[in-house]
Amino acid sequence: MKDGIFSDSEREALRARYEDIKSKGYKLDLTRGKPGKRQLDLSMGMLSVVSSGEDCYSEAGVDCRNYGVLDGLPETKAIFAELLGVPSDNIIVAGNSSLNLMYDMVTRAMIFGVPGGERPWGEQKGIKFLCPVPGYDRHFSICEAFGIEMIPIRMNEDGPDMDIVEALVKTDERIKGIWCVPKFANPSGITYSREVVERFAALTPRAPDFRIFWDNAYIVHSLYPDDPDPADWNIFDEIKKYGREHENMLYCFASTSKITFPGSGVAILAASGENIEYTKKVMSYQTIGHDKINQMRHVKYFGSAEGIRNHMRLHAELLRPKFEIVCGTLERELGGLGIAKWSNPRGGYFVSLDVMPGCAKRVYELCREAGVALTPAGATFPYGHDPNDSNLRIAPTFPENDELQTAMDVLCLCVKLAAAEK
Amino acid sequence: MKDGIFSDSEREALRARYEDIKSKGYKLDLTRGKPGKRQLDLSMGMLSVVSSGEDCYSEAGVDCRNYGVLDGLPETKAIFAELLGVPSDNIIVAGNSSLNLMYDMVTRAMIFGVPGGERPWGEQKGIKFLCPVPGYDRHFSICEAFGIEMIPIRMNEDGPDMDIVEALVKTDERIKGIWCVPKFANPSGITYSREVVERFAALTPRAPDFRIFWDNAYIVHSLYPDDPDPADWNIFDEIKKYGREHENMLYCFASTSKITFPGSGVAILAASGENIEYTKKVMSYQTIGHDKINQMRHVKYFGSAEGIRNHMRLHAELLRPKFEIVCGTLERELGGLGIAKWSNPRGGYFVSLDVMPGCAKRVYELCREAGVALTPAGATFPYGHDPNDSNLRIAPTFPENDELQTAMDVLCLCVKLAAAEK
Repeated sequence: MKDGIFSDSEREALRARYEDIKSKGYKLDLTRGKPGKRQLDLSMGMLSVVSSGEDCYSEAGVDCRNYGVLDGLPETKAIFAELLGVPSDNIIVAGNSSLNLMYDMVTRAMIFGVPGGERPWGEQKGIKFLCPVPGYDRHFSICEAFGIEMIPIRMNEDGPDMDIVEALVKTDERIKGIWCVPKFANPSGITYSREVVERFAALTPRAPDFRIFWDNAYIVHSLYPDDPDPADWNIFDEIKKYGREHENMLYCFASTSKITFPGSGVAILAASGENIEYTKKVMSYQTIGHDKINQMRHVKYFGSAEGIRNHMRLHAELLRPKFEIVCGTLERELGGLGIAKWSNPRGGYFVSLDVMPGCAKRVYELCREAGVALTPAGATFPYGHDPNDSNLRIAPTFPENDELQTAMDVLCLCVKLAAAEK
Repeated sequence: MKDGIFSDSEREALRARYEDIKSKGYKLDLTRGKPGKRQLDLSMGMLSVVSSGEDCYSEAGVDCRNYGVLDGLPETKAIFAELLGVPSDNIIVAGNSSLNLMYDMVTRAMIFGVPGGERPWGEQKGIKFLCPVPGYDRHFSICEAFGIEMIPIRMNEDGPDMDIVEALVKTDERIKGIWCVPKFANPSGITYSREVVERFAALTPRAPDFRIFWDNAYIVHSLYPDDPDPADWNIFDEIKKYGREHENMLYCFASTSKITFPGSGVAILAASGENIEYTKKVMSYQTIGHDKINQMRHVKYFGSAEGIRNHMRLHAELLRPKFEIVCGTLERELGGLGIAKWSNPRGGYFVSLDVMPGCAKRVYELCREAGVALTPAGATFPYGHDPNDSNLRIAPTFPENDELQTAMDVLCLCVKLAAAEK
C-alpha cells in the first residue's frame, strides 16, 4: 500500500537502514560555519610577517606596538576601503570580531543614540528590527538580548521582499534597523540584486534613527572566483545619490575571520563620515585602540585588496569540493522526490535546506540520534521559531570531505525517513 | 624686596631663564603612560613563538586559530590566576584592552544589571561612583560618558579615605561603584594597605548592585623587584571571609598592555563565580571569543606567572633610572622650597606632583609654551576639575633619559616661575 511518497515497504527499508547507521556510532558535525584546518593552514605565513621592530612601524611612523590610533592603521584601512568600495575615511578597523562590532553598534545606539536620532533607542518603547529569513542566528540573538522585537521578512530569490520592507519602515517609527547579509547570504547563499540594493539606498524610514546593518561577511568568499561578481553593485555609491540622511542609514561590516583566522582576524566598519565621527567619539571612551600589530600582520601578508582576492582563490579550491559533495548528494538522494528544496550557492559558508513542512525538527532529531550534529531546526529564524518547521542550515566547511560525505548520506536518509513518517 | 618665596630679582632671573629655554624650541612629552621603545623591544620574541600549526593547539586540543572558547584559553587563565591569586574558574581572558573590559562591564550593568541587582543601573536615576583622587582620567571618562555622577574621595597615604567610603556606600543606594587602582596607583603610586583592603572586603553598601572596580593595572610593575611586595594582601581571600554577597562586589582587572605590547596584549577579568557566569552569558551575545592566538603567544613566551615576574625585572631596569631622574630632579630643584610635594613611587607608571594651590594650570601652560607637553592640569580629577588647581601627573616612561632630564628641568623651572608669579 502506498500512502504517500514512500510505500510501507520503502518506509521499512529506510527505517532499517537508519537503524543500521545508528549502530555505527558516528560523531559528525555540520553545525557551524567554521573554516576547516586546511583553510587555516593557508594563512600560517601571516603569523611570522611581523617579527622585528622594523616590521612594526607604519608608513606614517606609528609604532604599532604602542598605544594609539583608535580607528585603525591607514594601511589596513586602505585595503578594506578598496575591497568595500568606499574611501578610507569611511572605515574603522576594529578588533577581532565583526559580531562584537555589530553588538557594540547596537549598544551605542541603545545608550547614546545615533546621528540624526532624537533619543537613544533604549529610551524608546517597543523598538523593532526587520529580520530577513532564513537568516543568521547571532544577529537575532543580539536583538533578543536587548529586547528588540523581531519581524521576519521573507527572502525572495534576489534578496528581502522589498515591498514589505519599504511599507513597514515607512509607517512604523519603532522599526530601527534591519539585518542584511547582502552577498552569499547566511544561510541561503543569495546575493542581493542591484534593484534590491537600489531600493535599500532609496528607503525612506519613518524613524530618523533607522539603520541598515549590512553584514558583508562573505564579500570575497566566492566558491567560483572566475564567476562575474554576483554583487554587481556598490551600496555606498547608490546611497550617496540620495544624500546625507540616506548615507547615515548604513552601517557596513566585514571581517577577516573567514579569510585568515576566526577570532584572530580584524573587523571592519564602513559608514558615512558622520557615523564614523560619532562612532569614534563614543568608542574613545571604550578603548585607546585595537590590536595594531595584528592589523599590520594583515597588511604585510596581503599587501593589497588584490592579495586578499588571490588568497581567497586558495580557500575556494578547498571549499568547492565540499559544497559539491553537499549539493551533489542532495540532488542524487532527494532530487525529484518533491520532499526537499535546497540552495546551490556560488559562495559563502552554507547550504540552506528546506524539508517538508513540519519535518525540520524531526530531521534534526533523527540526525542527532544517528551521530550527525545539525544546527537546531529553527535557528535561522527569530526566536528560533520557523513557522513551517522546514528550514535547516548545512555548514560544509569544517569536516573533512569523507566525513562530510558520510554526514550528508545520513542527513538525506533522515530527510527521507522523516518524510516517510509524515 | 622679598614678597614671597622668591625675591623680585630671583623672579626676574627665573623669567629670563624661562625665555631662554622657550627660544630653544623643545618638543618634549610627559603626557601619557606609554612604555618606551626599549621596553617594547623586550617582548619582541613573543611575536614569533606561535608560527607553526602545532604551536596553535592548546593542551586540551583546541585549535587557537578557529572560533570558540569565549572565556579564554585555560593555559592563559592559569597564568593570571596565579598572578592575581584566584582560581582559574574566576578568570576571563578577554581582548586587547582592560579599559575596554571595564567599559563593557559598566555597559552591561547599565543595560542588563548585575547579579543581585533589582534593575539595570540605566533604569535607576542619579547613580553615582566614588572616585579616589587624584585618579585615572579614563576611569572618570567612562562615568562621564554614561552620565554617572562622580564623587571625589580623598586619597590618604595608604589608600582611599575609608571612613568616607564606608559612610557613603552605607547610606546612599545610588552609589553603584568605586574606581580603585590598588597597587602603585595612577598617579600617586600608593599601594593600598592591608587594613584598607580589609575594609573594602567588609563594605556593606546600601545598593545590592554596588561594584568595586579594582583595576590592578600595575600588579607586577615594581621598579624595585627586590622590595617585599607592598601589596601584602589578597583581596579575593579577604572578601571570601564575608560570603557570597561581598564576593560579588568585586570586579578585578589586569592586562599585559604594560608587560608586552599596549593594545596588543591581553586583558583579564577576575571575579566571583556568579559574576563570571553572568558576564559570560551576556558576553556570549557580543562575541564568539577573543584572540586566542595572541593568548597562546603570551603562554608560550612566558610559560608561567614566574616568567612574567622575571620579564618585569627587565622593565624595571629600564624604568628605574627614569623615575630616579624625575624624583631626583624634583628634589634637587624644588626640595625644601615649600612650593611643591611629590610622590616617590616604588612602582607603576607615574609621579604625582602637587604644586602650590592655584598654580597647576599655570605650570601646565608655561610648560606647553616652552615645548614640554604635560597631561592637562585637572585631568586626575572627575570632570577635569581639581578644586585646588594643584595636581600634575608626570609620565616618565616614554621619553629617552636625556629628553626626560631636559623636560624635568623645564618643568621644575616652570613650577618655580609659577610660584614666583603667585
